[in-house]
Amino acid sequence: MDSINNSELIDGIEITPLKQILDERGGVFHIMKKSDSGFLSFGEAYLSKINKDKIKAWKNHREMTQNFCVPFGSLKLVLYDDRDLSPTQGVINTFQLDDNNNYKRITIPPMIWYGFQCKSADYCLLLNIADIEHDPNESTILPQENNKIPYLW
Amino acid sequence: MDSINNSELIDGIEITPLKQILDERGGVFHIMKKSDSGFLSFGEAYLSKINKDKIKAWKNHREMTQNFCVPFGSLKLVLYDDRDLSPTQGVINTFQLDDNNNYKRITIPPMIWYGFQCKSADYCLLLNIADIEHDPNESTILPQENNKIPYLW
Repeated sequence: MDSINNSELIDGIEITPLKQILDERGGVFHIMKKSDSGFLSFGEAYLSKINKDKIKAWKNHREMTQNFCVPFGSLKLVLYDDRDLSPTQGVINTFQLDDNNNYKRITIPPMIWYGFQCKSADYCLLLNIADIEHDPNESTILPQENNKIPYLW
Repeated sequence: MDSINNSELIDGIEITPLKQILDERGGVFHIMKKSDSGFLSFGEAYLSKINKDKIKAWKNHREMTQNFCVPFGSLKLVLYDDRDLSPTQGVINTFQLDDNNNYKRITIPPMIWYGFQCKSADYCLLLNIADIEHDPNESTILPQENNKIPYLW
């Protein structure tokens, strides 16, 4: 089984710290600007709601670049690289994303397997700013347990 | 004092119902797609967090078109039209936005005064998909109580 090694970041993944400017009324949470280095184009913004402990895995987009952040609750994100010519082929990365100390943006290029699990007490929200619109024909799914991805939830 | 009259929608405001596709694991909340009729361009996405009962008012953008929805909690949004040539000059609109029965997108063109108040028990989150990046030079602010906008919070 391949090792889980976050010290070797999967090639093409970008981690961007995001500002939270807080005051007594609340605050402003940055997400993404057109001028950000990782921005390609805007296709669609949507939210995934994930209930406590629930897992959504696995999916792989052939065309979509995704930009994930968690504006409510806490989530574990798992990525797996099986690209033939990738310098990080076989690497798994895991990330904790949340609305507090781990408020950051993870940019995921096409052809990376991903899945996630809610780690907060009630539910969490995962926001995706994607460069193309949702299209079921450009993605592949695999069941949570399979013979291809060496990760046990 | 001008009347608050949501039956007369301020000229240029668009209200778009948004889908929530729910299942036992959670769901998917639509926000905005490039092909949506109200979409102009993508400049920036950010969230405002508003604590219980707190008010943020008033602001007016000279250039930015905003697309608001509330993915967590509940919020009252108030709009005021003082545009000289508008057919709805003087009209105030109020909207309840939330993550449940009032999950919808409000598109606000430039030159409309807006403010909002958290109406949920803890806090709420207001998401804005704006057509230009944040720029403090293209907006005007007024204090919550002023002699221009006939609305008492």
